[in-house]
Amino acid sequence: MSSVAPVSEGANISDTTAYITRLGLAARAAAITLARASTQMKNTALLAIATEIEAQAPVILQANERDLAAAHGLDAAMRDRLSLNASRVAAMAAGVREIASLNDPIGEIQDLAFRPSGIQVGRMRVPLGVVGIIYEARPNVTADAAALCLKAGNAVILRGGSEALHSNQAIARCISLGLGAAGLPITAIQVVETADRSAVGALISNPAVVDVIVPRGGKGLIERVSREAKVPVIKHLDGVCHVYIDADADIDKALRVAFNAKCQRYGTCNTLETLLIAQSCAARILPPLFAQYRAAGVELRGCAATRAIDTTVKMATEDDWYAEYLAPILAVRVVRDLDEAMAHIRQYGSQHTDAIVTENHTHAQRFLREVDSSSVMVNASTRFADGFEYGLGAEIGISTDKFHARGPVGLEGLTSQKWIVLGDGHVRS
Amino acid sequence: MSSVAPVSEGANISDTTAYITRLGLAARAAAITLARASTQMKNTALLAIATEIEAQAPVILQANERDLAAAHGLDAAMRDRLSLNASRVAAMAAGVREIASLNDPIGEIQDLAFRPSGIQVGRMRVPLGVVGIIYEARPNVTADAAALCLKAGNAVILRGGSEALHSNQAIARCISLGLGAAGLPITAIQVVETADRSAVGALISNPAVVDVIVPRGGKGLIERVSREAKVPVIKHLDGVCHVYIDADADIDKALRVAFNAKCQRYGTCNTLETLLIAQSCAARILPPLFAQYRAAGVELRGCAATRAIDTTVKMATEDDWYAEYLAPILAVRVVRDLDEAMAHIRQYGSQHTDAIVTENHTHAQRFLREVDSSSVMVNASTRFADGFEYGLGAEIGISTDKFHARGPVGLEGLTSQKWIVLGDGHVRS
Repeated sequence: MSSVAPVSEGANISDTTAYITRLGLAARAAAITLARASTQMKNTALLAIATEIEAQAPVILQANERDLAAAHGLDAAMRDRLSLNASRVAAMAAGVREIASLNDPIGEIQDLAFRPSGIQVGRMRVPLGVVGIIYEARPNVTADAAALCLKAGNAVILRGGSEALHSNQAIARCISLGLGAAGLPITAIQVVETADRSAVGALISNPAVVDVIVPRGGKGLIERVSREAKVPVIKHLDGVCHVYIDADADIDKALRVAFNAKCQRYGTCNTLETLLIAQSCAARILPPLFAQYRAAGVELRGCAATRAIDTTVKMATEDDWYAEYLAPILAVRVVRDLDEAMAHIRQYGSQHTDAIVTENHTHAQRFLREVDSSSVMVNASTRFADGFEYGLGAEIGISTDKFHARGPVGLEGLTSQKWIVLGDGHVRS
Repeated sequence: MSSVAPVSEGANISDTTAYITRLGLAARAAAITLARASTQMKNTALLAIATEIEAQAPVILQANERDLAAAHGLDAAMRDRLSLNASRVAAMAAGVREIASLNDPIGEIQDLAFRPSGIQVGRMRVPLGVVGIIYEARPNVTADAAALCLKAGNAVILRGGSEALHSNQAIARCISLGLGAAGLPITAIQVVETADRSAVGALISNPAVVDVIVPRGGKGLIERVSREAKVPVIKHLDGVCHVYIDADADIDKALRVAFNAKCQRYGTCNTLETLLIAQSCAARILPPLFAQYRAAGVELRGCAATRAIDTTVKMATEDDWYAEYLAPILAVRVVRDLDEAMAHIRQYGSQHTDAIVTENHTHAQRFLREVDSSSVMVNASTRFADGFEYGLGAEIGISTDKFHARGPVGLEGLTSQKWIVLGDGHVRS
């Protein structure tokens, strides 16, 4: 069993910009090889990485202990995300194996068809090139993000929270060994080995060596990256999700969906934050629904019409309609009809995930068409907005943008399509 | 016949940023209506716009004369692009009618399928929102870009070269009348009515009111927009296109494709700029090919091996390999094999359009897979890289980026996809 991998270069990095450029050029070169690597080679590497992670679990855990010992300023939640144990390391390896089992999107040819000129035109799926991942002190992201990028044929530069540096280096060592075993360049996946925060600035402002940045973490990180980036960003901002219980809702489905959307997990971005309900059914549905919420310990904040039905509900302020609580708190508003519900979502929502509960076909169709969110649902819990639930196999993040990828982003979001043209000596007249 | 439309607001715009924000907010509101507008309403508006353009041709031409009279500093090519005549106005109207005849991409649902949880998951095509188009003094772009954005359900803000302001206003008046006739908000398509250059800066740096910018014009404009933009940009930079004549090329196809790619039109971005040829067939193919080029008046600049075959060819410099001549000049390089050809393309190309001429299946497959350009071709002229030739019906531009849209961008590039989930009271466990 080898000892904890030393900080190979970290101690000697003085010029961060030059260092990031060096990593970037190496990634750019590796990306050429990755783009043409066969599915088999990529899978061989992924399986070898998973095996290495399992074999080196004690080394990874030792490195993680070193990180934890040095991490004084972290709160309990951050400390929990930083800390690894045997089952978390096993889950990391299992996740990498799962990605090996996904279909390889690279090289897929779509819509190849003859044109009147005689040429055949279609589109071939290709990697984006070099992906930069910026994340907080969560070592499991290192394996997960690296594996997804590798499967999609991209080189990747990983910049995790400095508190996790030793854990990340230990995982990176497993990744290098796996790449090497498959005959792929080890510079295909590189970890930034400096705690210097200027490394993030250098990484996000060099379009010559990075094709896309995926920030994963808190809102502060994502806002900073988005504001300063000179390369495209796949970003995830707020999740102010709504369930609208329509006048024509089935009461059982309404109770089930609205409860699950709020209470299945409080801290996730696809959790319900504001419940909207048509005035004609509010008096019938809110009392049993509120009883469920109260039993689960959810604090309710409502509009005047909500409080007219249940006087124990707290008065909601304007701020409540914008709030992403990520906590057992729910804002409730009674609306006149579908139009007022959609107007509320447009004004206060974050275009993440919104659902309608209704038996009315026309209302369902209008909600699907007109609500401009990355996921729009009928009679289903907002908690389903997730790459695994959608069948993507894995997700690199959830995009709240419309450009390129929207909603849960899996392998396909890490690719592009080029045009291919097949002729037989065809020329343009 | 009404007279030339007056500059309605242009003379009074003092605060450009506030003005652009005003246009943007109006566009944002109109975009909501556009997104849910039926195909029929959009087509009615497009056909009404075409009819107005035809009816008001004399007014448009009068406005154009006013622009031409004021445009002293323009060179002949720019003046030609600015000037309209009866047949150009008719072509403008015909172009708008053609866009009306294209399939509406909005609302298309793709891959709707059941997941193990019981929910149905698919993706619905939706508009991007508000599109900003920045272009030079080419009034035909006003009608063309507006029509494409409208068909894709987007609101649009058009900022054409100030030399074309009166022409653009006259065309904008036709557009407003057409939108009004269809019952759509006239703020769905707005023309920036100030010549102040700071309007461009304001337009590209306000992600709250603009979702994507499409710059159309010279490299200087595009580089400036890309550098300063705070919103996504669909951009087109250089077209340094290659044809590689492989050792296994058919000589007739090679002569035909290499000649057409260079000589069918010199000034376009998909024109051949550097010819690569395998050394084993250079002595056989270059002499007859050079004879064709010389007959067409093309100046040849070659590497040492090229000049060993034809001593009258000028010596190429390193700069020639990077050059986008847009002129009857061709750089020629003899390479060892496919690998050296692809290495040359990687080093000097601009990832626009590259073609191989070969009868060898493996070489064709490798070229298609490994050349990282927006269009990659086998035995076909690079001149085919075009939205119309690819069957897009029309194009808003050609993207040399990989993110979002790549290569010719038609209606689909002006859209996004959201996730839709259909359940029957399904909740997540």
